[in-house]
Amino acid sequence: MRLRNKPRAAGEIAANPQYMTTTPMDFKGQWQRKFAQKQPLSIEVGSGKGRFIVEMAKAYPERNFIGIEIQPSVAIMILEKQLVEQLPNLYLIQADGGDLTDFFAAGEVAQVYLNFSDPWPKTRHAKRRLTHRLFLAMYQTILQPAGQLQFKTDNRGLFEFSLISFNQFGMQFNELSLDLHADDAPDNIETEYEQRFSQMGHPIYLIQAQFKASTSDQPATDR
Amino acid sequence: MRLRNKPRAAGEIAANPQYMTTTPMDFKGQWQRKFAQKQPLSIEVGSGKGRFIVEMAKAYPERNFIGIEIQPSVAIMILEKQLVEQLPNLYLIQADGGDLTDFFAAGEVAQVYLNFSDPWPKTRHAKRRLTHRLFLAMYQTILQPAGQLQFKTDNRGLFEFSLISFNQFGMQFNELSLDLHADDAPDNIETEYEQRFSQMGHPIYLIQAQFKASTSDQPATDR
Ligand SMILES: C[S@@+](CC[C@H](N)C(=O)[O-])C[C@H]1O[C@@H](n2cnc3c(N)ncnc32)[C@H](O)[C@@H]1O
Ligand SMILES: C[S@@+](CC[C@H](N)C(=O)[O-])C[C@H]1O[C@@H](n2cnc3c(N)ncnc32)[C@H](O)[C@@H]1O
Repeated sequence: MRLRNKPRAAGEIAANPQYMTTTPMDFKGQWQRKFAQKQPLSIEVGSGKGRFIVEMAKAYPERNFIGIEIQPSVAIMILEKQLVEQLPNLYLIQADGGDLTDFFAAGEVAQVYLNFSDPWPKTRHAKRRLTHRLFLAMYQTILQPAGQLQFKTDNRGLFEFSLISFNQFGMQFNELSLDLHADDAPDNIETEYEQRFSQMGHPIYLIQAQFKASTSDQPATDR
Repeated sequence: MRLRNKPRAAGEIAANPQYMTTTPMDFKGQWQRKFAQKQPLSIEVGSGKGRFIVEMAKAYPERNFIGIEIQPSVAIMILEKQLVEQLPNLYLIQADGGDLTDFFAAGEVAQVYLNFSDPWPKTRHAKRRLTHRLFLAMYQTILQPAGQLQFKTDNRGLFEFSLISFNQFGMQFNELSLDLHADDAPDNIETEYEQRFSQMGHPIYLIQAQFKASTSDQPATDR
């Protein structure tokens, strides 16, 4: 199914370079040129079908947004939304978010969003979790000093792991909810997975944390 | 009801100084004398009827335990358990846990337990929460370097507050559960409140965190 869609997806992406790229390394340090205006840049890693990043771009015209999705057949669903919306502050990347430091220059990003990231529940796959310290080190590099990370999920195991991971990396917690939909959260923009899992009665977890401005006392990240 | 019980409670406590005191400042730095053996000391603040501290003392004879409860009429229920059990590694304090640094010398305690502490949900009462940074500074003073704090509750608001409070105080998270009773936790000793609220279907939250060995970069605690 995904294989059959691949050529079509590749063609559609190639036909729309004004909205989506598969070679983000070509634009490292130059992302502001993709947008109508030079404004603080937020990225989402693992955008899925793109409801969140599209609605964020609509809600915050004074910010620029990039959605990153690894699967071509999923990424084109965001592209198709953008072909309709034509938002001047939204750009899309179809590539592996594991290579962020090749895509963005140090300090180029103001905010990173992770939503309902794949949980990789097996301990031997912990390094693939997008909240593992190996990924945190990348986010810290591309984020401006004291840059923010926001993470939402319904997956308890992944959220427990992430709280410990953020804490042990020396990040500061600014906001936290263990049942976002029971809170008064008028600004919350729901993702596709969030809509599905909250309807099933799962609590939605949220954390907003920031990296320390000084990196001098960070733990080693290569262990 | 509580008033009527008070004289009886005071009498019963006064008659059993080998198990309980109301003047803990008299024993500051000398707590090991209260026990059959000199062993690492754990304390619980707000022990209620005492199921947790009594069962801990039974399960870990190689450690000493002190339960602290502010209400005389509640504290005597722990005393009555101890009059039956006569555990050589358990001692009780009926006093305000807000004065811990008057009761314990610096570094005298190995571990602090908080279980189902009063939530004080109103923001203007935040300073009364036993996980507020004002209390954390006290625990840090009486704990040995890198001393541990364990906290359980079913109260979502208090747990969210506490995670942020511990993190911003510079504590390191070691263990965390957002649904302890769904986990495989064979060593968990349930408190009275835990039994009641888990039966009602509330998830039980747990965190084990430790203070940084060096206190040089702690945030100020008087803000
Ligand atoms: C569980 S889905 C969640 C989608 C969306 N964020 C939501 O909340 O509805 C995770 C998405 O992340 C994508 N993904 C996983 N690893 C990725 C990576 N390394 N780089 C970019 N996208 C990734 C997957 O292809 C999938 O579409
Ligand atoms: C909600 S009950 C929980 C009791 C027990 N820990 C449990 O989990 O079943 C809280 C207890 O903490 C006690 N407490 C509250 N503030 C205290 C303080 N400053 N010092 C000592 N005990 C306190 C209360 O009297 C009450 O018995």
